[in-house]
Amino acid sequence: MNDGQYLFEQLVTADIGEEIFAFVAEIYPICRSITGRGVRETLRAIGEHIKLEVHEVPTGTQVFDWVIPREWNIRDAYIKNERGEKVLDFAQSNLHVMSYSTPVRRRISLAELKEHVFTLPNQPDLIPYRTSYYAENWAFCMPHRLLESLRDETYEAVIDSTLADGCLTYGEYLHEGETEDEFLLSAHVCHPSLANDNCSGIALLTYLAKQMAGVRTRYSYRFLFAPGTIGAIAWLACNEDHVGRIKHGLIVSMVGDGGGPTYKKSRHGNSRIDRAVIQTLRHSGLTPTILDFSPYGYDERQYCSPGFNLPVGLLQRSKFGEIPEYHTSADNLDFIAPDHLAQSYRLIAETIDVVESDLVYRNTSPKCEPQLGRRGLYGAVGGHKDAVAANMAMLWILNLSDGMHSLLDIAEQANLPFAVIRRTAQLLQHSGLLTICDTTLDKRGALGTAQ
Amino acid sequence: MNDGQYLFEQLVTADIGEEIFAFVAEIYPICRSITGRGVRETLRAIGEHIKLEVHEVPTGTQVFDWVIPREWNIRDAYIKNERGEKVLDFAQSNLHVMSYSTPVRRRISLAELKEHVFTLPNQPDLIPYRTSYYAENWAFCMPHRLLESLRDETYEAVIDSTLADGCLTYGEYLHEGETEDEFLLSAHVCHPSLANDNCSGIALLTYLAKQMAGVRTRYSYRFLFAPGTIGAIAWLACNEDHVGRIKHGLIVSMVGDGGGPTYKKSRHGNSRIDRAVIQTLRHSGLTPTILDFSPYGYDERQYCSPGFNLPVGLLQRSKFGEIPEYHTSADNLDFIAPDHLAQSYRLIAETIDVVESDLVYRNTSPKCEPQLGRRGLYGAVGGHKDAVAANMAMLWILNLSDGMHSLLDIAEQANLPFAVIRRTAQLLQHSGLLTICDTTLDKRGALGTAQ
Amino acid sequence: MNDGQYLFEQLVTADIGEEIFAFVAEIYPICRSITGRGVRETLRAIGEHIKLEVHEVPTGTQVFDWVIPREWNIRDAYIKNERGEKVLDFAQSNLHVMSYSTPVRRRISLAELKEHVFTLPNQPDLIPYRTSYYAENWAFCMPHRLLESLRDETYEAVIDSTLADGCLTYGEYLHEGETEDEFLLSAHVCHPSLANDNCSGIALLTYLAKQMAGVRTRYSYRFLFAPGTIGAIAWLACNEDHVGRIKHGLIVSMVGDGGGPTYKKSRHGNSRIDRAVIQTLRHSGLTPTILDFSPYGYDERQYCSPGFNLPVGLLQRSKFGEIPEYHTSADNLDFIAPDHLAQSYRLIAETIDVVESDLVYRNTSPKCEPQLGRRGLYGAVGGHKDAVAANMAMLWILNLSDGMHSLLDIAEQANLPFAVIRRTAQLLQHSGLLTICDTTLDKRGALGTAQ
Repeated sequence: MNDGQYLFEQLVTADIGEEIFAFVAEIYPICRSITGRGVRETLRAIGEHIKLEVHEVPTGTQVFDWVIPREWNIRDAYIKNERGEKVLDFAQSNLHVMSYSTPVRRRISLAELKEHVFTLPNQPDLIPYRTSYYAENWAFCMPHRLLESLRDETYEAVIDSTLADGCLTYGEYLHEGETEDEFLLSAHVCHPSLANDNCSGIALLTYLAKQMAGVRTRYSYRFLFAPGTIGAIAWLACNEDHVGRIKHGLIVSMVGDGGGPTYKKSRHGNSRIDRAVIQTLRHSGLTPTILDFSPYGYDERQYCSPGFNLPVGLLQRSKFGEIPEYHTSADNLDFIAPDHLAQSYRLIAETIDVVESDLVYRNTSPKCEPQLGRRGLYGAVGGHKDAVAANMAMLWILNLSDGMHSLLDIAEQANLPFAVIRRTAQLLQHSGLLTICDTTLDKRGALGTAQ
Repeated sequence: MNDGQYLFEQLVTADIGEEIFAFVAEIYPICRSITGRGVRETLRAIGEHIKLEVHEVPTGTQVFDWVIPREWNIRDAYIKNERGEKVLDFAQSNLHVMSYSTPVRRRISLAELKEHVFTLPNQPDLIPYRTSYYAENWAFCMPHRLLESLRDETYEAVIDSTLADGCLTYGEYLHEGETEDEFLLSAHVCHPSLANDNCSGIALLTYLAKQMAGVRTRYSYRFLFAPGTIGAIAWLACNEDHVGRIKHGLIVSMVGDGGGPTYKKSRHGNSRIDRAVIQTLRHSGLTPTILDFSPYGYDERQYCSPGFNLPVGLLQRSKFGEIPEYHTSADNLDFIAPDHLAQSYRLIAETIDVVESDLVYRNTSPKCEPQLGRRGLYGAVGGHKDAVAANMAMLWILNLSDGMHSLLDIAEQANLPFAVIRRTAQLLQHSGLLTICDTTLDKRGALGTAQ
Repeated sequence: MNDGQYLFEQLVTADIGEEIFAFVAEIYPICRSITGRGVRETLRAIGEHIKLEVHEVPTGTQVFDWVIPREWNIRDAYIKNERGEKVLDFAQSNLHVMSYSTPVRRRISLAELKEHVFTLPNQPDLIPYRTSYYAENWAFCMPHRLLESLRDETYEAVIDSTLADGCLTYGEYLHEGETEDEFLLSAHVCHPSLANDNCSGIALLTYLAKQMAGVRTRYSYRFLFAPGTIGAIAWLACNEDHVGRIKHGLIVSMVGDGGGPTYKKSRHGNSRIDRAVIQTLRHSGLTPTILDFSPYGYDERQYCSPGFNLPVGLLQRSKFGEIPEYHTSADNLDFIAPDHLAQSYRLIAETIDVVESDLVYRNTSPKCEPQLGRRGLYGAVGGHKDAVAANMAMLWILNLSDGMHSLLDIAEQANLPFAVIRRTAQLLQHSGLLTICDTTLDKRGALGTAQ
């Protein structure tokens, strides 16, 4: 497959980290929420790179147990003191206003204002990120030090927002592979100026999709850019009849920091995507954390709800909620780095490579070992620094290629990197010692979920 | 079920520990053995609290591989020295005579006497507890210091006992539930003045049965007070045709000391009673020891014999044989305490609550998460200090209520206390988000043993 | 079976270690390779003890993916300096010549000689053991100190060897048991003067076969003495139709040193031979290492190739490759000892005893415990120092003899030595409390591999 060139090598470029970072920087300033112009503007930016299909779901549409809410937009917001000085200005940070705040234009006392202010007393210099999508309210978010500095006077509180019938917007892009079986890659697009959560995920998937153009794959790859929770629910409601195509899925968020990597398994717990990611992370040289599924987290909650139970996991660097920068103004461009983005990109590209190449071979000489030396196979890989691993890989592949073990099964049992197993299997195949036993993606998908 | 009031709360009273302790103190002085007046006197005392059905199995009755032995009774026993002084007096401790000692009235030398004396050289102040039910013999048990103080003279050894045809006696009490499926709770009644082993178990089960009167339960609860080994065998022989009703069972012994708790699993190893007890102990705040089944121990040996293989475990505080007080005169009223008895009682009541409430629900909105906020469920439990646990419980229950997970399954997977899962499930049920999927006790029993 | 006398006791004699050692010393000097006179001479020595059947497979014979190579023989070899002094002499150690070296008789410079010399710079006093069976070449092996002492002069290099059409030779001996089901015991005979690897294995199996003569067994025991790899492949090719008879197998090598013991499991990983060896090692008082199967090692590689997948494990003392003496001249008679050989012999004899005695019994009194005291069984074994173990063994056997657990299953679950379980089971059988449930070897074999 791939005519001898590995998918991984086709997907990765030298400056991929810098490119992703630049795109993060481009979309970082946009004020996103679960609906509104910020989402559309973000999707438009993505559309500069890939042919994105944008969908609008009208307010009031029933999506399973939920109803698409009114669309929220905001032009401006500030707090002025009695001297007319803006003590808080939305223009400086879109985190200053709680997402979905109702419009306000009032003179209020400090005491009343305080009832509509969120701060982080333990991180007094940071602005918290808050939302109130379904309970009508308004609030400002500010550094605790700012709140403490406010004098007891009358303030002018202005939030120039609108809540009105409109749409929820999401975008998707399909890279068509040889089959209709799909690998879903999804990033939430509802957070405002938070660089890691989730400009990083949006930008990484945009570049992955872009890089995949023209590359032959077995699976079709569906890239989804949708608001968290309600967006995933809306997508599932609109695509309910087709979700059976999804054989593997990854939610991608917070992939720009240097922590982790962290992988949370799908509800299946041992599906092929789980095993492919874990195999990749274990041989990455990093110190991954592997978490069992739990029903709290990102959009895997929806894909793994009992009515769908799709094999969808969550890939992050640091785990959400476990770093001080999480959901604060400290999640800015300084918090992420091109190197981390490139590393995360490579992990996903390698995972895709595992899933694409996870074939079942059959040893054509299954009785006793074949004579490798005669074929020049012992030492054929001697030039590589992993010659010992390659020799062991040969023995493992020949021993386990009985029609019941895929390359991923073999890599796991041999405790060797998948790439070594895959490359060695192709060498053996060229020598006639292996034949492909079963290339049907459907069956492989079934194999994955059956385990 | 239980019309909103939890079984646990109906079973537990504030002064339950003091009440059980007082009953232990009442029956502690009685000289029990595997047959005889002591057993009848004990059953009579139990009968003051619950309507006990007493059975008499005549000497010579074949019960499986065993035969009911002759009945043993004892009026008095002593050892007098040459000066007529009683150096040992049965009236001071019924441990002084080996249980089932044949009658004796002889003058014997110290040397001959020593052949009929048991002591504990390493615990020289304590009287050991000894029996010889099936090999005819007689013996005195005494502190090693006493034996060492005896002068080399002639002693008058008297054991005024009888071994004659009679009966083996046991008592049982059935609390009738909504179904005929039974939960067996059994305590051995054959040990003389040993407070923990097993006056504690007898008294605890007496008060549990008493407290259960008038309480609606799904299962029927069979309380059995029988001599160890031969009594359990006799009961099984008399009830062989009905043991299939026993879906869960607990042997209760040594529940008054502050050690443990210790749970020894049934032979199944993963039956529902095993999982219910373990779930309760793990969230008890104590440091439980969980032991695999072994064929050495208490009456679970009989229930778990291969011809029955019933799901019956053993609950204790300290493990038998592993404390210095075990089977000595130090196992007295000072060794146990009302607090420990109350704690043991609560553990059993909680276990019963788990088994009673272990329903299978089905999420009525299984595609994506339902919108909890709209129903006031997020934060509905905010007042509780375990609000976070309750929120997680909601998500876990909704995610796993696919008709294949009971509440106990969910509690185990969520690593949350069963009570939190149960309470939250009822909240979700009232909101219409859950329906009971299967309430058939038979099926639940089968579910339990099938796992 | 065995009419009351245990197989183990029939197989072990007091001086077995000394006898095996003496035989090792006898065959140690022979220059073996994968073909040639050394193998034949070794088989002739074995034939002095047992009626060995010797097979010759001609050069050029196709054996699966391999072809039997030309036969190699060597008469002499040396290196002479300009003064005619032999600086290296094959007569002093047959390790001095790389096995399968082509004939050489030349005057060469030191520089050229060095291209045909192997040494061990980190073990400068030892001669390495090297082979080049399938790539034509010649080389000397010598201590690194010797190489360093050689002056820059012209040397006469002589290897008086022949490579010519001939045969590969192996020997086998069948001890016929009650059934045709076989236990394969195999030792490689291709290494020259290396005492542990594998004169020890050859000698141990020779004496085991010799000792087995006249002993009644259920299984037939096939002893195979063949060159490593190509010999095992040749044997499998010649016996392809009959390998289904092999129910258990052990590769025996390096059993004379004091390390380990080390057991590498068969590819099945949990076959009966694996469990029998592990059971024996765990209760040996030694500190065994149990390794999962891997496709690198000794002849288990061939028996466990996917086309055969036979239940064959590898038993060693120290693990190959993990000791400094491995494949050097330090693997000499000083490196092994009669005590270690005797210990290894006993481990194998005990394993055989487990496999032979691993019956499934049925408790004839399965409802409740039978009354052991009445039958004199409690304490019947009191004279033994392992009386407590025997009592526990009785309870475990009675509890688990439900027709679904063999004695090995019971020994594992009870964590007791197999010998205690077996002896106790026979005691219970004599008391009528157990009957043999299933003695069919075929079924037992199936049981073993099915697990």
